[in-house]
Amino acid sequence: MRVPARRLRSQGVGVTARGKFAILVPMSDIAVTFAPEQHTVQLPAGITGIEAAGAAGILVNTPCGGQGQCGKCRVRFLTAAPEPTPAERELISADDRAAGWRLGCQTRLRGAATIEIPASSRPAETQILVQGVAREVAVEPVVGKRFLSLPRPSLDDQRPDLARVLAALDGSVGVPRDVTLLREMPARLRQADFRVTAVLCDGDLIDVEPGDTTGANYGCAFDIGTTTLVGYLLDLSTGRQLAVASALNPQVTYGEDVVSRINFAMSRPDGLAVLHQSVVGAINELIDELLERSGVPRQSVYEIAAVGNTCMTHLLLGVSPEGLAATPFAPAIGGAQWLPASEIGLRIHPRGRLLVLPNIAGFVGSDTVGVILASRLDESAELRVAVDIGTNGEVVAVRGRRMVACSTAAGPAFEGARIRYGMRAAAGAIDRADFNGDLRLHTIGEEPPRGLCGSGLLDVVAALRQAGLITEAGRLLDDEAATAAGVPAHLRARLRGSGAETEFLLAETPPGNGVVTLTAQDVRQLQLAKSAISAGIVMAVAELGARPEEIEELLLAGAFGNYLRPESAHAIGLIAGIPTERVRSIGNAAGAGAKLALLSRRLRERAARLVEEVVYVELSDRKEFYEHFAEVMPLRPKANPG
Amino acid sequence: MRVPARRLRSQGVGVTARGKFAILVPMSDIAVTFAPEQHTVQLPAGITGIEAAGAAGILVNTPCGGQGQCGKCRVRFLTAAPEPTPAERELISADDRAAGWRLGCQTRLRGAATIEIPASSRPAETQILVQGVAREVAVEPVVGKRFLSLPRPSLDDQRPDLARVLAALDGSVGVPRDVTLLREMPARLRQADFRVTAVLCDGDLIDVEPGDTTGANYGCAFDIGTTTLVGYLLDLSTGRQLAVASALNPQVTYGEDVVSRINFAMSRPDGLAVLHQSVVGAINELIDELLERSGVPRQSVYEIAAVGNTCMTHLLLGVSPEGLAATPFAPAIGGAQWLPASEIGLRIHPRGRLLVLPNIAGFVGSDTVGVILASRLDESAELRVAVDIGTNGEVVAVRGRRMVACSTAAGPAFEGARIRYGMRAAAGAIDRADFNGDLRLHTIGEEPPRGLCGSGLLDVVAALRQAGLITEAGRLLDDEAATAAGVPAHLRARLRGSGAETEFLLAETPPGNGVVTLTAQDVRQLQLAKSAISAGIVMAVAELGARPEEIEELLLAGAFGNYLRPESAHAIGLIAGIPTERVRSIGNAAGAGAKLALLSRRLRERAARLVEEVVYVELSDRKEFYEHFAEVMPLRPKANPG
Repeated sequence: MRVPARRLRSQGVGVTARGKFAILVPMSDIAVTFAPEQHTVQLPAGITGIEAAGAAGILVNTPCGGQGQCGKCRVRFLTAAPEPTPAERELISADDRAAGWRLGCQTRLRGAATIEIPASSRPAETQILVQGVAREVAVEPVVGKRFLSLPRPSLDDQRPDLARVLAALDGSVGVPRDVTLLREMPARLRQADFRVTAVLCDGDLIDVEPGDTTGANYGCAFDIGTTTLVGYLLDLSTGRQLAVASALNPQVTYGEDVVSRINFAMSRPDGLAVLHQSVVGAINELIDELLERSGVPRQSVYEIAAVGNTCMTHLLLGVSPEGLAATPFAPAIGGAQWLPASEIGLRIHPRGRLLVLPNIAGFVGSDTVGVILASRLDESAELRVAVDIGTNGEVVAVRGRRMVACSTAAGPAFEGARIRYGMRAAAGAIDRADFNGDLRLHTIGEEPPRGLCGSGLLDVVAALRQAGLITEAGRLLDDEAATAAGVPAHLRARLRGSGAETEFLLAETPPGNGVVTLTAQDVRQLQLAKSAISAGIVMAVAELGARPEEIEELLLAGAFGNYLRPESAHAIGLIAGIPTERVRSIGNAAGAGAKLALLSRRLRERAARLVEEVVYVELSDRKEFYEHFAEVMPLRPKANPG
Repeated sequence: MRVPARRLRSQGVGVTARGKFAILVPMSDIAVTFAPEQHTVQLPAGITGIEAAGAAGILVNTPCGGQGQCGKCRVRFLTAAPEPTPAERELISADDRAAGWRLGCQTRLRGAATIEIPASSRPAETQILVQGVAREVAVEPVVGKRFLSLPRPSLDDQRPDLARVLAALDGSVGVPRDVTLLREMPARLRQADFRVTAVLCDGDLIDVEPGDTTGANYGCAFDIGTTTLVGYLLDLSTGRQLAVASALNPQVTYGEDVVSRINFAMSRPDGLAVLHQSVVGAINELIDELLERSGVPRQSVYEIAAVGNTCMTHLLLGVSPEGLAATPFAPAIGGAQWLPASEIGLRIHPRGRLLVLPNIAGFVGSDTVGVILASRLDESAELRVAVDIGTNGEVVAVRGRRMVACSTAAGPAFEGARIRYGMRAAAGAIDRADFNGDLRLHTIGEEPPRGLCGSGLLDVVAALRQAGLITEAGRLLDDEAATAAGVPAHLRARLRGSGAETEFLLAETPPGNGVVTLTAQDVRQLQLAKSAISAGIVMAVAELGARPEEIEELLLAGAFGNYLRPESAHAIGLIAGIPTERVRSIGNAAGAGAKLALLSRRLRERAARLVEEVVYVELSDRKEFYEHFAEVMPLRPKANPG
């Protein structure tokens, strides 16, 4: 990232369309045209291919955060290509380099160019989970409205406007600290002949609206995922959900996992601001969409309740996540944040508020708090466990109202990163596999296969394990070993390479990439990921004095948890040997938790106490974790047969 | 004011130098040159002479608020002058009109012009009272600092930065609602190796400063007068005053009294914004001056405590004073306001606070609360009265801890308005007069006389009363009547005109104005003003069941109160017949009150209760007030000899 920091800062970042954003460039030096769009932009020389594409509103995959490590941002120069960088020499074949292929994150534009961004390097439309879990809740929002028919001023009643309003509210409300309301109030009262509606937000007077507006009281709940943003618009009077909208988190351009984003935030002077502004811009566009779909006016939306992992909530607030970059992983903020939404740049009522639910620890965020609220895990007497499987696997185990949480660095395998042909759960991703003598694959949207998403990876490994091509120890057999193991010839025919370089051909793909394979390294990545999660489950329940087999119910939260097949998860030991009938997918429980906090004062207070009650177990310095990790490595249902 | 509103709004107002401000004009149509500066500005056609002068940074007197009534903004066209307006025909002689004289507020510029602004139409450097009253007070500011040596994060202590700080503050402090602090905190803590100073403002954490800064804790007190702004910088640790600075309130250009300013605020779409920004700009320049004089860094000033009359505090906050424009005079805000200073645009610590002390009523403001605090009037068992004489005379009467306040519309006579040769207490103003067979005059700065300020007006009337030229009923004798009354010839020689048109020549003035005289109308204005104040005193003490002669002590607050001669005030019955030995001038007690509130949490809490305890008496609908008013009209010491 050697573009001069001063220049980059002066450019700023603006959102042009949902999920897309442009770096606004005041200084024009070179013309860059993108194919197949034939869209030309003027850009300063020295910019990277990905930055240039961003300026043209084109998103490019960067699972590794633009570090030149994953090779998933390949672009092709249709004009003369720059000299290949060392990373490009390593990740792109000589033939492809000669054909103009480069890495978008590595190549730098020094002169006018035409660049093709292939479909394989662009994020596809993502399949997003938006149904939540159902939990009955009494609607008691912190935003309330009261219609006031005030006495008009007279010589016998010269009270100031503000005192007149506050007195009608029984003296329970203090003087607003926001001068804009004081400025608007006199005209409002007179226009409405002193018949107004007071809007109270957690006891603060935030508006005085002309006439009786008590029927219009709305709020938004947001789940700020590392990959996906989901927003809900709710009627705070009835609790009814009026609209839902979702989008990719545009921060994915700057790294697909939280560690990449923390690095990005720290590696450039404007890194934090870029990440902050991009997510705020995307949320604002989701709000626009929610308002348009529901017909609700912006000024009647008084609160946003948001959950996300600890890094995401820091970035949402524009607070540096650098404390999470290294041991001892102390974040900047932990408890619930309650701020004017306008301070963050979120466009609801001008004096509306933003609630960010509290985090439990550096890598167990408010999204996990949302999962607990939505699943009522905290009320459980029996041993129950919730797992939110993503780049980090957050595990919460509960028994007799004691709660333990931990976070395991599963790695991004389930989100398609560090897997040779990994991709997000989008059109063309292999999402299911069955073995019944032969391997049968299914893709999202029934489209030609482009790669493997998390649930597909899990299924494929389970299927090849069943086919005898993968050993319990996690070795993908090469032709020689498969022959020795008696694997049928039609399966062996799909093997390439040998030893640690073995690959299994899953499918031929559309022109450009050639094939989709599963590599020995992919199996290893999955094995590491599943072992981390499984060991996390073991550690969490051990902290409660229990063993995994005692778990009464295992809840799988999040998109991946919803789409994976419990049979496959069981088969390879992802869920610590728990029988599949005790496993339940609960969907986007984090988002449901945000909605519950929006609707219920009691539940948001519960959330504040929750984070105090949950015992966080830091695994990185616990010897037992590594012991369990080793124990659960084998690809078999039960971690510990003993 | 027929300049299109849209155009004026687009111009904005910027402060260019203390007490001066410019209307920034993006659209240039005509060139206007000002003499004697020879300063040329490009301006849109149709603008008034005063607006054009403002754009050139030249302040012009407008005691009547630019209504074409006072004739004090005379300017002279050195190029062809526009047709005179009706107001100009009335207020400027035909000879002067022919010589190019016009009224700055009335004349409109339609083409290029050169205009002379004579010294007599410009505000002079004002003599400002800055010494306060001394009151012992325990220094207990609401801004406190605590040095914290925090435990560094470790794997055993992964608390978030914020939780770490809040825990060290004994859990008494809540989560800041200002995201900027959250954003700055992580880097601050790490830079300072977790040795930091927490800044608490009324229990809110507003900053975490690297190292031990407990020694640097400052605040400002401001008296926002209709005419004068006075600022003080205080060390909040010791209570010591480090610097004082004062300036004209630049709002004077838009009207010299509160009624003119309210009219200005209501007469233009941007009127309120112009008034608000001009006073905020002037306060910021005073802050700059205080910081420069003391060497105190801006970021160590955490609070401003301000007092002013009710209209001034509305304008300071940018809140419309329109409720004060007409009966029933209900203001928008009354109680104390406690806001982020940055919301108002005041430049101290970025998260510093502004306290505006509470108002008592629409025309008895927080400046009167300051007077009560400074004089300890509220603790008085005896009958004591404080009078703040200005455009309005605010009267507070106290006995046995009962407090009564009222406001009398004295008119601006004491500030030089509506007096033919009236002016503010500035260089060249006649400020004292003695009669000892002949009339002896004194001017401020011993400069050639330019006009009469309030104390001079009072002295001159008292002197001419003594000379027998003014009757007890307030009639200025003309030559015929004076001859009949036996007034010596050398005094009679100075009389001009007859009957209601009689004038007494006080002095020849520098070329341009010709003379300074006292007119029969001037005597009438003073008589109305003194009667209003005197009747207010009678009403206030009557409300306590007392009579003026029972007053043990009469406190005169404010600049006029400090400079007037109690003998003269007594002689003409300004102070309701109270013997001069019971009269005490207490200087800028309002400003002293602001300092006390800044230094003492107890006194600011006292202020909040005070306004509830003070019984406000609205005089405008009280028949007795008009009876007392008539009774005290005679120019004699005792109002009611009966």
